Amino acid sequence: MYNSLLLPDLRVLLDSNDKTGMRDFCEALHPAVSAEVIQGLEVDDAWRVLSNCSIEVQVAIFKYLELAYQVALVEAVDRKSLSRLIEEMPPDDRVDLLERLDPQQVESLLPLIAQAERSDIRKLLSFSDDSAGSIMTTEYASLPEDITAVEALERLRQQAPDRETIYYIYILGEGRRLHGLISLRELILAKPETLLADIMERDVIAVRVDDDQEFVAQELAKYDFLAIPVVDNQHCLVGIVTHDDVLDVLQEEVTEDTYRMSAVEPLEDSYLASRLTTLAWKRGVWLVLLAIAAFFTAAVLSGYEEISAEFGWIILFIPFVLAAGGNAGSQSATLVIRALALGEMTGRDALRIARRELMLASLLGGGLMVIGFFSASLFVNDFKVSMVVGITVFLVVVMGTVTGAMLPLMFKRLGMDPALMSNPLIAALVDVFGVIIYFNVAVMMLK
Amino acid sequence: MYNSLLLPDLRVLLDSNDKTGMRDFCEALHPAVSAEVIQGLEVDDAWRVLSNCSIEVQVAIFKYLELAYQVALVEAVDRKSLSRLIEEMPPDDRVDLLERLDPQQVESLLPLIAQAERSDIRKLLSFSDDSAGSIMTTEYASLPEDITAVEALERLRQQAPDRETIYYIYILGEGRRLHGLISLRELILAKPETLLADIMERDVIAVRVDDDQEFVAQELAKYDFLAIPVVDNQHCLVGIVTHDDVLDVLQEEVTEDTYRMSAVEPLEDSYLASRLTTLAWKRGVWLVLLAIAAFFTAAVLSGYEEISAEFGWIILFIPFVLAAGGNAGSQSATLVIRALALGEMTGRDALRIARRELMLASLLGGGLMVIGFFSASLFVNDFKVSMVVGITVFLVVVMGTVTGAMLPLMFKRLGMDPALMSNPLIAALVDVFGVIIYFNVAVMMLK
Repeated sequence: MYNSLLLPDLRVLLDSNDKTGMRDFCEALHPAVSAEVIQGLEVDDAWRVLSNCSIEVQVAIFKYLELAYQVALVEAVDRKSLSRLIEEMPPDDRVDLLERLDPQQVESLLPLIAQAERSDIRKLLSFSDDSAGSIMTTEYASLPEDITAVEALERLRQQAPDRETIYYIYILGEGRRLHGLISLRELILAKPETLLADIMERDVIAVRVDDDQEFVAQELAKYDFLAIPVVDNQHCLVGIVTHDDVLDVLQEEVTEDTYRMSAVEPLEDSYLASRLTTLAWKRGVWLVLLAIAAFFTAAVLSGYEEISAEFGWIILFIPFVLAAGGNAGSQSATLVIRALALGEMTGRDALRIARRELMLASLLGGGLMVIGFFSASLFVNDFKVSMVVGITVFLVVVMGTVTGAMLPLMFKRLGMDPALMSNPLIAALVDVFGVIIYFNVAVMMLK
Repeated sequence: MYNSLLLPDLRVLLDSNDKTGMRDFCEALHPAVSAEVIQGLEVDDAWRVLSNCSIEVQVAIFKYLELAYQVALVEAVDRKSLSRLIEEMPPDDRVDLLERLDPQQVESLLPLIAQAERSDIRKLLSFSDDSAGSIMTTEYASLPEDITAVEALERLRQQAPDRETIYYIYILGEGRRLHGLISLRELILAKPETLLADIMERDVIAVRVDDDQEFVAQELAKYDFLAIPVVDNQHCLVGIVTHDDVLDVLQEEVTEDTYRMSAVEPLEDSYLASRLTTLAWKRGVWLVLLAIAAFFTAAVLSGYEEISAEFGWIILFIPFVLAAGGNAGSQSATLVIRALALGEMTGRDALRIARRELMLASLLGGGLMVIGFFSASLFVNDFKVSMVVGITVFLVVVMGTVTGAMLPLMFKRLGMDPALMSNPLIAALVDVFGVIIYFNVAVMMLK
């Protein structure tokens, strides 16, 4: 949005090499907006703009750039200027970037970075992708429990400038063991002489460093927290995950699920930032798999060649029958996959859901049976033939619905991503069994 | 999760009518957890548990209950006990609940509620569903600009107990006009004698009261804010939307999109909390519409009856050809709909995306053409027939891909929800045109 409005202005500044103008441009706007505009430039021009800003402004803008663009920028600049930027970046954003770089490049960068930051980077890089450890920041506010509220505020003022948030303050004991939590709101409301130990919340809800990022996001969302602490096996605080990172994680997970459900392998970058060959690969893999499934449908059909030669009308309703089953199945799969993602139900609810979907299937199948019956009677003036189509639609819808609901639940129980049971895959299965049902009903009713 | 662990304990307390036990149960747990457990009870039992708690605890638990369950609870209790609870609820949660009640019931409740709260309710109820006004809270912290930092902290202490957040403080002028913003972090770091006017951020990013809730959520997410101010036409502050509400909105919008994309009308409640008849309706509407689309495919097929009688093999690859086009089309539609939802592109990018998808379509169509060709040659030992299948697959994939990418963009430009162009609808369109392509290629190549 801002892009189209402000990009021309920025290009004018670039063309006239107006250094003060470029600096003012970056400093006057919210860094998220500057980032959006800068992303519209070639990387060399982006560096020309950024180099006029203080390192603080550069860092602020950098974290709002799309990751693919960050990588492109990093690859276009010498290591020396880069090391300073990387030192100043918030630990969680920094690790996101470094994870995307070539490991060799990371190794050549690390020696240029200050020792303290370097070990922080190595630690965060060591956590597996998609774990709490990989999205947490180590810049949290912490205090001991044996000081008073007024002392706490004083110490907090010193910590404030380089902490990601100071609104939740973690109370730590020996070895950074997590003893409690105080919000800044409580701290401000407390009497000045109260000891933190007397006002802190002791029963702190925390996640473990190897918990899945999706679980972390769900926990934070459930409790409406601003941040959630991350602890290791000894219940020592190693980091925090903040609300804004959780928003990103949720968007990322949802995008992944949405893609999977339509049989697209998840992309690392946004749709527009992805290469054409990457997109072709992420889609092609599934299309080939689905083509193989469709091959089975053709094989099944070839087994019924005599029947289809005898019943000329049978071809007419193949797409109709298969679409009804596939659509009902996709609906069920989607409802179940989304409910699982929202944590509304678990793999254990399978029996309850099967019953529910079976009842729904009878209702929906019954309705579509009537439509199928009348549609058929418009083409073929034969009661029995119309009955074949109607009954087939009913059976295929029931089969599709139950398959669509049960397969994602089964995947969940097996510890796999239920979204892998994509709508097209459900439809492909419905196709194979739908054809078998259709021809068998025809044979039984008419022969 | 907690449900199955703690629900039996709560039932024991209920059976022995242990009032202190029930109160302790609710007060010891985080209200989100209490709510999760209580939701497993019948409403009468839930009230028996809640009635032992203070009104504050009741309110805290109530807001974490699913909306459908809140409504059931409200309908099971007398108006008198209810009015107190509703008075104490946060304004935004309260309005969510009242919006779901029968308007007559709301009217009979309002006279029992204190005047000040009542007019707040009427105001919030007046905003249209899904607008910023309908999700905002009126309990924000605000200060004038002509006081010092130390005075500000003192005043904030008085406001703190009943504000949704005090971490962002809005600086208001005459008529509640929004002049600036200070975060509590900046306030704490400021020298005690500084005037707020000198440290406040003047260029405040705000949304308008009639902005769509999805836009509000995107703005807050983009800037990593804790809350975003909501202003009226005169730029006067009327409320704020906080990060936790934005999380809920995003989840809700995503669920809506996911449902729509699989041709399920959005549900008001969760999948498990929805009635069977509601589900049947929300799915049935689309299934009937899609069945009508499938009827056209049957009609088209019936026009080619002579050709299908002549070419017995043609039936074999109908599902194969249509699935390839439908799957590729669903993929494109999903990628475009999700990118639109994330704000990564707008309806204006149509041309660029069409070009991109066309190139992708050639790649994917080319690959699938080869698979189609060899699949066909396994069943029919005729080079020309295999070519018909191969060429048809290519054309149908290209047609599906372009249709899948363009229709959601068109819907967006027309101001409609692009997710209405669901995967099954794309597949239904591909079916109709796919059949036409298939038979025409066959006729042209073989006759």
